[in-house]
Amino acid sequence: MQRPRGPPKPSDFLIDHQTIPYAAPPGGVLLRTTDISIDPAMRGWMSNAKSYLPPVKLKSVMRASSIGRVIASNTDTFAIGQMVKCDNGGVQTYVKVPANETEFLLPLPSSNHGNYVNVNISDSAYLGVLGTTGLTAYFGFLRVGLPQRGDTVLISGAAGATGSVVAQIAKIMGCKVVGTAGSDTKCRWLEENSIVDVAINYKQARGKSLSRSIREATGRKGANVVFDNVGGPFLEAALSNLARGARIVLCGAISQYNSDGAELATGAQVKGPRNYMNLLVKRASMKGFVVFDYRKEYGRAISDLTQWIQEGRLKYSEHIVEGIENFHPALMTLFDGSNMGKVVLGVVDEGKAELATSGVATSRDDIKSKL
Amino acid sequence: MQRPRGPPKPSDFLIDHQTIPYAAPPGGVLLRTTDISIDPAMRGWMSNAKSYLPPVKLKSVMRASSIGRVIASNTDTFAIGQMVKCDNGGVQTYVKVPANETEFLLPLPSSNHGNYVNVNISDSAYLGVLGTTGLTAYFGFLRVGLPQRGDTVLISGAAGATGSVVAQIAKIMGCKVVGTAGSDTKCRWLEENSIVDVAINYKQARGKSLSRSIREATGRKGANVVFDNVGGPFLEAALSNLARGARIVLCGAISQYNSDGAELATGAQVKGPRNYMNLLVKRASMKGFVVFDYRKEYGRAISDLTQWIQEGRLKYSEHIVEGIENFHPALMTLFDGSNMGKVVLGVVDEGKAELATSGVATSRDDIKSKL
Repeated sequence: MQRPRGPPKPSDFLIDHQTIPYAAPPGGVLLRTTDISIDPAMRGWMSNAKSYLPPVKLKSVMRASSIGRVIASNTDTFAIGQMVKCDNGGVQTYVKVPANETEFLLPLPSSNHGNYVNVNISDSAYLGVLGTTGLTAYFGFLRVGLPQRGDTVLISGAAGATGSVVAQIAKIMGCKVVGTAGSDTKCRWLEENSIVDVAINYKQARGKSLSRSIREATGRKGANVVFDNVGGPFLEAALSNLARGARIVLCGAISQYNSDGAELATGAQVKGPRNYMNLLVKRASMKGFVVFDYRKEYGRAISDLTQWIQEGRLKYSEHIVEGIENFHPALMTLFDGSNMGKVVLGVVDEGKAELATSGVATSRDDIKSKL
Repeated sequence: MQRPRGPPKPSDFLIDHQTIPYAAPPGGVLLRTTDISIDPAMRGWMSNAKSYLPPVKLKSVMRASSIGRVIASNTDTFAIGQMVKCDNGGVQTYVKVPANETEFLLPLPSSNHGNYVNVNISDSAYLGVLGTTGLTAYFGFLRVGLPQRGDTVLISGAAGATGSVVAQIAKIMGCKVVGTAGSDTKCRWLEENSIVDVAINYKQARGKSLSRSIREATGRKGANVVFDNVGGPFLEAALSNLARGARIVLCGAISQYNSDGAELATGAQVKGPRNYMNLLVKRASMKGFVVFDYRKEYGRAISDLTQWIQEGRLKYSEHIVEGIENFHPALMTLFDGSNMGKVVLGVVDEGKAELATSGVATSRDDIKSKL
């Protein structure tokens, strides 16, 4: 009964089976979950440190965004069958949405009537490229990174869900893009799909230091924008290769999340960037952001991202792990680097679908942070 | 014959006695130095790392700004007797200024004819509050820190030359000011002279952690602007007490300059701020700057600073060490914290003045970086 130290273990979670009525709350809806977003930020929510969101409480349902279908409704706003995105759906198979939270549900176009249907865009894309992941890339890069045409952009975790979107937006903006990733397979994918101009395998910089590999890729001028998802040695290598006036966008520090006992907010066990004074030498800045602050502008961003997808200029890849019982292995793909693109937990299997469609939900499977 | 490792030692320098002609170069002037600016940045210039200025070369005159009197002139622009500030005067008793460098000399008002005389402002102030030190405070705080009325401003090295000017500008701007310093004497001076609202002795936080002392002083809201001269534990404590949207201005990292073998640009031996991801949590930024980038606006800044001094709203204190042979102890006051205000090396003693006024300069004493 404790919060994880280091990488989360399967025993940090428990699956809680409950029986719930097949009914919507007064004025609300009941959702059957189809897809759950798996995010690096989850590791932070499990720790007890203050952050931009409070920690997940012990023994409560693990926080997550999800996609679900309305299977019972007590409101005219949502009809049975409607697909919705639920920002606080949690890692659970059924979601009861009370009346005062229905306004936060995003109806998805796939099940809308009329003309507004995004061809070739899956519902699960609203957890990734059209969800928090893509919005993080969009606002972090454009609003905090302030790219200009011709800039050199350096991205860590470039094959990841956020990094790959940043890279493609950077190309759309006319930037040169250098990305790091953790395997030759990912680097090949990045270059062959023109996600980046130069990909660097940070684990095998061919005998060279990461800093030197970055210097060769960015040129002596250095990087104008750095979008960092990983921290650690990458951040120091980036600080050594800044162009004058560079902007470092702090999006994450996944290399440090599982440092034994790590609390990013307090810094215990985390290594800070020793060469941070290069920010002075290069008149550069390092800035953090939280995507939720841009909530009022999500509509415009989703419209831009959707257009780029439909024009074929923005590709997205999903790494789908089936079965809610596989929450832990799905999460771990983020930290061992075995994922390729956005990690999504596919929830409805045949058996559970049958239970649901039988008219009575006999079981709700919640992944709780045992912690 | 090596660059310093750790704190500079007396043996890292040598005093070179040369005989020079008492004559100005063609089109230039000869200056007799009266005051030399002693700055923390000198430690960085002695190291071999790339920075915003190239390192001082081995066996060449140590870089410094200085004040001098024109004692020989081959140009109509400067008359004998004129006091000038020379940005690259160096640690030497006489300065030959060639024709192409006279444009960088700043004539000081004390010896100007006409009305433009600053009452009660010493020439040496042009090395401190009206020199690079004061300009660094002015542009760093106002342009990078972007203070707003009512903001809480947290300053390290608040009793130092730069910090004390930042603190007073912050008060003039209507901010609440919390400053740290390294002794009770300094803290008393800061509070009694209303330089800051709350002073914290970082060496004796009365049994509390520095972070907690800062939290008590800034309140739960935290600091909106942090002006950091010292780095190290202060920077981490500041990162733990940021208001949302805070701006950290990186001006220096004096606590780290003498780390054994420290090179701030490469980060060897330096400790980076482990809790830097608080920048994300608080949507905050950490930004470096170099005062020289604002060169075109120095006139406006000096005019503002002069006015504040004359109105009694900006006080400055100088810590004058007499004798060029005391360069090393003067420098070390910056690192052991024994200085109080701007450190200035007073150069002309009676004996040397006599030599100069005899009409022939028989000796030029240069402090060279032996290194």
